[in-house]
Amino acid sequence: MTDSGIHEFFRAVSDAIDIPIMIQDAPVSGTALSAEFLARLAREIPRVAYFKIETPRAAAKLRELVMLGGEAIEGPWDGEEAITLLADLDAGATGSMTSGGYPDGIRQIIDPYFAGQREQAVNAYARWLPLINYENRQCGLAASKVLMKEGGVIASEAVRHPLQPLPLVTRAGLIETACRLDPLVLRWGK
Amino acid sequence: MTDSGIHEFFRAVSDAIDIPIMIQDAPVSGTALSAEFLARLAREIPRVAYFKIETPRAAAKLRELVMLGGEAIEGPWDGEEAITLLADLDAGATGSMTSGGYPDGIRQIIDPYFAGQREQAVNAYARWLPLINYENRQCGLAASKVLMKEGGVIASEAVRHPLQPLPLVTRAGLIETACRLDPLVLRWGK
Repeated sequence: MTDSGIHEFFRAVSDAIDIPIMIQDAPVSGTALSAEFLARLAREIPRVAYFKIETPRAAAKLRELVMLGGEAIEGPWDGEEAITLLADLDAGATGSMTSGGYPDGIRQIIDPYFAGQREQAVNAYARWLPLINYENRQCGLAASKVLMKEGGVIASEAVRHPLQPLPLVTRAGLIETACRLDPLVLRWGK
Repeated sequence: MTDSGIHEFFRAVSDAIDIPIMIQDAPVSGTALSAEFLARLAREIPRVAYFKIETPRAAAKLRELVMLGGEAIEGPWDGEEAITLLADLDAGATGSMTSGGYPDGIRQIIDPYFAGQREQAVNAYARWLPLINYENRQCGLAASKVLMKEGGVIASEAVRHPLQPLPLVTRAGLIETACRLDPLVLRWGK
């Protein structure tokens, strides 16, 4: 996709709706979006306001995006299961879109950070990182469903094609890693 | 590259030398190597014996490789800065090729693991993961040099083109994260 095609697309969407647009910048899309281009979209297209940055070196990109886009960047956000959350917060992220498995854990990092208690956030990030890392590297999208199934929140952890269910041993590793942190999800439906 | 071309290449190398061959399986190479194909290389080519697996879902791939290749897989190894070290050890990795910045930290994970003290390894992995993660996600190859320069081990942390030096703020984050763990490298040359 060309930058001008992408620009036209978001312009058309922006003209058609009344709510803000969030652009998810992830390598899996196959579409490279430079910080310069994202900042231009934010400046030139009214509803483009939030950015979920999931590329390699996300923190450096967030920093560049905020620098180039200024106030047009209403929401520079961390993503990708929070694997780089602390660095992204340090880079100016004002929020994070993680998976849905353990918002109580993510909150233990974000709340103190924005309350000015960075050291507490650093410690919480270190505490949750083994689970964040296991989800990010071993599981992907299946992790939230597995955790919710395990905690009785949902009845089925089936994933859509072409995704595959987690190998049993990987699933066991996820539960083991999660149990060490006692996330709400494992107790919610019980 | 085709599988047959790769096969011929390693056959030619194997015939020409007397030492074992390690194959580094990393996405950055642009060459996809399936577990089936790697196992076949190990079985059919005498010196192909070690495998550094750095692909997504490395643990599942290591498990498959060991299952398919059996004794021909002399060294199924973890890589990529040890970002998935614990899962890879659980999957049967017998070693790891990390960066050179803090082998003393990696050892705190690997030694107890192979001594049957898995819980101690789990705790050490959790302790070092913020630094491993910061190196893996924010720094890449520059991290070791920065740490060695900071500890007086080397005089210059310059990286070769086309790599760029770390942004100053990223470099500061690396040092902060490392200092929390007191790795030998920060004291070695002082």
